[in-house]
Amino acid sequence: MAVTPSSISLESLDLDPAFALHRGGKLEVRSTVPVRDAGDLSLAYTPGVAKVCTAIAEEPGLVNDYTWVSNVVAVVSDGTAVLGLGDIGPAAAMPVMEGKALLFKQFANVDAVPICLDCTDVDALVETVARLAPSFGGINLEDISAPRCFEVEDRLRERLDIPVFHDDQHGTAIVALAALKNAARLTGRPLGELRAVVAGAGASGVAVSRILLGAGLGDIAVSDSRGIIYQGRAGLNPVKEALARDTNRAGLKGSTEEALAGADVFIGLSGSTVSEAAIASMAPGAIVFALSNPTPEVHPEIARKHAAVVATGRSDFPNQINNVLAFPGVFRGALDVRATTITENMKVAAAEALAAVVGDDLSADYVIPSPFDERVAPAVTAAVAAQARADGVARL
Amino acid sequence: MAVTPSSISLESLDLDPAFALHRGGKLEVRSTVPVRDAGDLSLAYTPGVAKVCTAIAEEPGLVNDYTWVSNVVAVVSDGTAVLGLGDIGPAAAMPVMEGKALLFKQFANVDAVPICLDCTDVDALVETVARLAPSFGGINLEDISAPRCFEVEDRLRERLDIPVFHDDQHGTAIVALAALKNAARLTGRPLGELRAVVAGAGASGVAVSRILLGAGLGDIAVSDSRGIIYQGRAGLNPVKEALARDTNRAGLKGSTEEALAGADVFIGLSGSTVSEAAIASMAPGAIVFALSNPTPEVHPEIARKHAAVVATGRSDFPNQINNVLAFPGVFRGALDVRATTITENMKVAAAEALAAVVGDDLSADYVIPSPFDERVAPAVTAAVAAQARADGVARL
Repeated sequence: MAVTPSSISLESLDLDPAFALHRGGKLEVRSTVPVRDAGDLSLAYTPGVAKVCTAIAEEPGLVNDYTWVSNVVAVVSDGTAVLGLGDIGPAAAMPVMEGKALLFKQFANVDAVPICLDCTDVDALVETVARLAPSFGGINLEDISAPRCFEVEDRLRERLDIPVFHDDQHGTAIVALAALKNAARLTGRPLGELRAVVAGAGASGVAVSRILLGAGLGDIAVSDSRGIIYQGRAGLNPVKEALARDTNRAGLKGSTEEALAGADVFIGLSGSTVSEAAIASMAPGAIVFALSNPTPEVHPEIARKHAAVVATGRSDFPNQINNVLAFPGVFRGALDVRATTITENMKVAAAEALAAVVGDDLSADYVIPSPFDERVAPAVTAAVAAQARADGVARL
Repeated sequence: MAVTPSSISLESLDLDPAFALHRGGKLEVRSTVPVRDAGDLSLAYTPGVAKVCTAIAEEPGLVNDYTWVSNVVAVVSDGTAVLGLGDIGPAAAMPVMEGKALLFKQFANVDAVPICLDCTDVDALVETVARLAPSFGGINLEDISAPRCFEVEDRLRERLDIPVFHDDQHGTAIVALAALKNAARLTGRPLGELRAVVAGAGASGVAVSRILLGAGLGDIAVSDSRGIIYQGRAGLNPVKEALARDTNRAGLKGSTEEALAGADVFIGLSGSTVSEAAIASMAPGAIVFALSNPTPEVHPEIARKHAAVVATGRSDFPNQINNVLAFPGVFRGALDVRATTITENMKVAAAEALAAVVGDDLSADYVIPSPFDERVAPAVTAAVAAQARADGVARL
């Protein structure tokens, strides 16, 4: 096969610090045991390795004690919904999955392997990940487009006895719930009194709505590109149909902006924009999470003129809602007790632990900790592990 | 799901140094870039990563420059033919695949990820590995039972534009050819004058026979558990049928031991045994490679009474035929030039480079270098890379 070299000059790309940092990739695999001589080799490889293999064949659970499997998570994507870039394919998704893997290691000492798959069919994705499962202690699904991501995750959760976690859904949901709990505490209201509008019915919009429903929010209206989702709206897919049943008790129709009139909470996960007038129409003490990246639905400084609490997905404004606050500790906790799954309770426990880190320092500009707050991962880890035990899904 | 803890005491297992070394596994994934603060995070992850993804989406070859893909090999097994242990399944195969991965890193700075698959059907294996391919720069197949291994490799080689290499076949073949070249040189005979008997028609037996045929050996008789393979023998599978056509010009029938009478070379890859009398019946200056592990077909000290050169697969006797002499450098060389495949010429070049390391120190107890000889991997790497360029399969 003849291959034409790229016409792009790497030297010119590398003038950009992001390219320069990525040159050669961001990960490596290292040995944790010495192989200095034939004696070491005879333990780490043949013939010594044979007795370890035999022991695992006889007692399968020993794979968790004598291999790296119980500490390693596959970060799996098909490249169909990468950041705000959309369907860019498995190769172009790799830098994000590598980044995720290094965050796993950095924040929770979880070994993670980026796996970008050359298939997008739901059956193929499920089958492929299930075949890979003996090699991993957990599966972090990433950047798989909705609504396929829901079915892929549901079927894998059903089939595998290791944690399967679609971070775009549940990572975002955990951090958003934590921030909302603190924002409600700051503004002196119980969650049950709040009416929220969630813009976006993709992976994160659905999962955030679901976790808020579970947390007892007063009412939630969810919108997609065609406006508020309500029962009987034509052309709803099964996921949105279920959402229509469980949300929007007020029976709202129309646009996101119309729904914001008098609402207490706005959570933007849509990539669209919301006008200052719509934010101004919200109830007093409004809570605005404009989470689209890199461009929030409303500029945080504009939102702050009308809202009591504003959060975004960006590191250059206060209250960054960043998944890295959740997924490392969630998996660390699940792996530590060899949980067979991640329950709803474990996600809520993660959110509560995350909210509690803020403690008495709570303020309008501090409803969620910084990603670099070293208390975060241990707190989430401990809460998730304890909840796994309480839920009877822990093996240790 | 309730899970019963193992009844085995890990503390008692860990009294064995092989178990103690394996506790917690042998690998980890590490970041090669710093993530100390929000600035680092904004380059290694969002938002900086987005421009790298976009560049790869536009120019797919850049994935090799800006991710780890071009330095990472998947070590893939289905656990059906692990060491001498047979079909022990994917979980029990993991310690071997981890071991392989650490040897890749140790000897050639190749990052390798152990992937043990929960499927054994040829179509499923091919399809799964093909879907994984965007995540890797090469595929090392390992411990997949014959004859499925041949079809799996052939179909993946056809389908993928990255190196696919079944090490049980070609790693063994490369090292055996290197040792045989030196043994022939030592005993003063050209390969074309040698008549060989290869015991074993599994992955390694077939590949060794094929590479020796390519190298111009005089004649080769291959045996399986039913004796010497000849044209027209009933019940041959397609791989053995092809072997029957291409080998055994003398038309031998009967047992391995019968075929050894007057033979110049014996290569054992069968796990069976060969009597001292059969070794004694070989031609003067006999070359005996008794490669089964952990028990060679004939004890090397017995064989040495009758043969000019004896090699085994063991580190505690002279002339260890160990795949680690080949696979790290083969992949390092292929990855360095981003080869699209590994050609027959590249394997022969690896064998020649390996044989040449011995140089003027050649003796009956030194026909092949030690696995810890630091000249080996660079020599194999350089030869494989140069041959890839000569064969027109290099992208760099």
